[in-house]
Amino acid sequence: MNQQPFNAEVYRGKNVLITGGLGFLGSNIANQLVKLGAHVTIVDSLNPRYGGNWFNLDSIRDKVTAVSGDIRDEELMTGLVRGMDVIFNLAAQVSYIDSSSIPFEDFDVNGRGQLILLEACRKNNRGACVVFSSSRLVLGRIIEDPVTERHPTNPLSLYGAHKLVAEKYHYMYFKDYGIPTVVLRLTNPYGDRQQMKHSKYSMPGWFMRLAMEGKEISIFGDGTQIRDYVYVSDVVDAFLRAGMTEAAHGRTFNCGSGRSYQFQEMVTAVVGTVGKGTVRHVPWPENYERVETGDFRTDISALSGATGWEPVVPLEEGIQRMFEYYKANRAHYLF
Amino acid sequence: MNQQPFNAEVYRGKNVLITGGLGFLGSNIANQLVKLGAHVTIVDSLNPRYGGNWFNLDSIRDKVTAVSGDIRDEELMTGLVRGMDVIFNLAAQVSYIDSSSIPFEDFDVNGRGQLILLEACRKNNRGACVVFSSSRLVLGRIIEDPVTERHPTNPLSLYGAHKLVAEKYHYMYFKDYGIPTVVLRLTNPYGDRQQMKHSKYSMPGWFMRLAMEGKEISIFGDGTQIRDYVYVSDVVDAFLRAGMTEAAHGRTFNCGSGRSYQFQEMVTAVVGTVGKGTVRHVPWPENYERVETGDFRTDISALSGATGWEPVVPLEEGIQRMFEYYKANRAHYLF
Repeated sequence: MNQQPFNAEVYRGKNVLITGGLGFLGSNIANQLVKLGAHVTIVDSLNPRYGGNWFNLDSIRDKVTAVSGDIRDEELMTGLVRGMDVIFNLAAQVSYIDSSSIPFEDFDVNGRGQLILLEACRKNNRGACVVFSSSRLVLGRIIEDPVTERHPTNPLSLYGAHKLVAEKYHYMYFKDYGIPTVVLRLTNPYGDRQQMKHSKYSMPGWFMRLAMEGKEISIFGDGTQIRDYVYVSDVVDAFLRAGMTEAAHGRTFNCGSGRSYQFQEMVTAVVGTVGKGTVRHVPWPENYERVETGDFRTDISALSGATGWEPVVPLEEGIQRMFEYYKANRAHYLF
Repeated sequence: MNQQPFNAEVYRGKNVLITGGLGFLGSNIANQLVKLGAHVTIVDSLNPRYGGNWFNLDSIRDKVTAVSGDIRDEELMTGLVRGMDVIFNLAAQVSYIDSSSIPFEDFDVNGRGQLILLEACRKNNRGACVVFSSSRLVLGRIIEDPVTERHPTNPLSLYGAHKLVAEKYHYMYFKDYGIPTVVLRLTNPYGDRQQMKHSKYSMPGWFMRLAMEGKEISIFGDGTQIRDYVYVSDVVDAFLRAGMTEAAHGRTFNCGSGRSYQFQEMVTAVVGTVGKGTVRHVPWPENYERVETGDFRTDISALSGATGWEPVVPLEEGIQRMFEYYKANRAHYLF
């Protein structure tokens, strides 16, 4: 493809902290960084509702420092941020659906926890580049096609509201204290090491489990809603570039594949790849419809322009790679 | 002036809760509502750093129910919101300057406290109209002239960031749970009952104190920065209209005078009205300049269009009225 050269070798010998590093995205970043020769430290709360999983580090367990701890632990974070060159900040309550039933937990982890991390940087290490994992759900109802970074932000969930305030923290700590921060607004990332315990987020993972178990997959409505599924290796590449690109500092970027897929195309790819499972269309339940955002097509030109990043993995290939991963490792992702 | 008729009599017999009701704006709303025959309940934490002051209720002390308590007290709020028709939600950590030195207190009061209030409404009273007091400081650096409600929101202070997330809560609880909420983004309100203890917010109050004491007033820079000073009776009118206008529900409005004044015009009006005090120009200190927003002219057509509201008090008249108030009552506002 037309990716600009990015010398990922720049990470060799670098000190990198990954919050939420036992989760889906964090652990994929960790695996890639170990290959590149970085010194990787991971902190993860292993909250059973979230995506943290020790198995995600299986092949690099002796090559990283992994701490079981919470980003809300100020003393712990103070120690961890010292000496870091880059911090990939992915620790979060991860379900927008859960956020309405655990409003104060979402507030505490996705709001206060982020402030604790940035305060720790302000007091102890203003030089580390902090790359924050935000979400398209900061936007709310979609009124722009394709969606740029200037789209209004009127979230329909507390998850989205707290991701938004955390975006603002990262911006403000750059403007006010000079801490180099970058915000990546993820669309629908999927791939290896994604949780498949439940259906509360990351539908490709959940659907792959159902398909592999030969079960029925329910699609709400006609399944024609447009989503932007982005494969995890492309997301990892975006994070690595963002962490080493001065032109990205203080900015917020969309991070998706830039391609449009109907929801049912994703389901069809999963069922077709796995070769098992069935599909049934059901009406939207009330509580889901309330937070349905509408069709989502992503303009990713800003991040590409700033970092040279271009996602390269099409949906079918990503689903195929994901299937290969779970064929070998599915037992570690069921509970 | 050209104000559309608004029958404020609609408040007669209504149950109204005012959070932060011992403060500058809250107590002015309370005084007006008592005149209109509403049943007024006030809750205020009386945090010494904020603007709460028992004297603000002096003339209506036996006509309202006033509770010394914190909006972060979930049980208290559960009891207070029940049976209310309108809730004027003004409780806040009020200084954007302090917010950087007490980040977690600002987070807790201006973030979590707002969520506690709205959760109390969701569980106990979804019918009450909640009018939230937000701030122009949600916007950050100004890039639009005049400023509409579509201006980007990139706050430069934690105060601004938390006012922003609270705006989003109010919007979301309207969209998701049908609670009628209205957000008013105040510019620079001033007037009777404003605190004059320190210079951390509300400069007209602080400057009037200095002038009345015959002291020197320092103006940062050349004093030509544009501000929108809005007199408190106009703000009170905006809140009362917002609380009773269905067309305002779920919306965010600018709430300023719609007039432009140079900072030094305000100072001149204060010194000229008081007839004492002197003025000196000094350089911007580093920590102030960092959060200086730039010139601010306000487009108030949206709120006027929705509610018929038009501010009517020009700066000189407002400063004169304010001076009359403090000539009689200044001793109650010094500590």
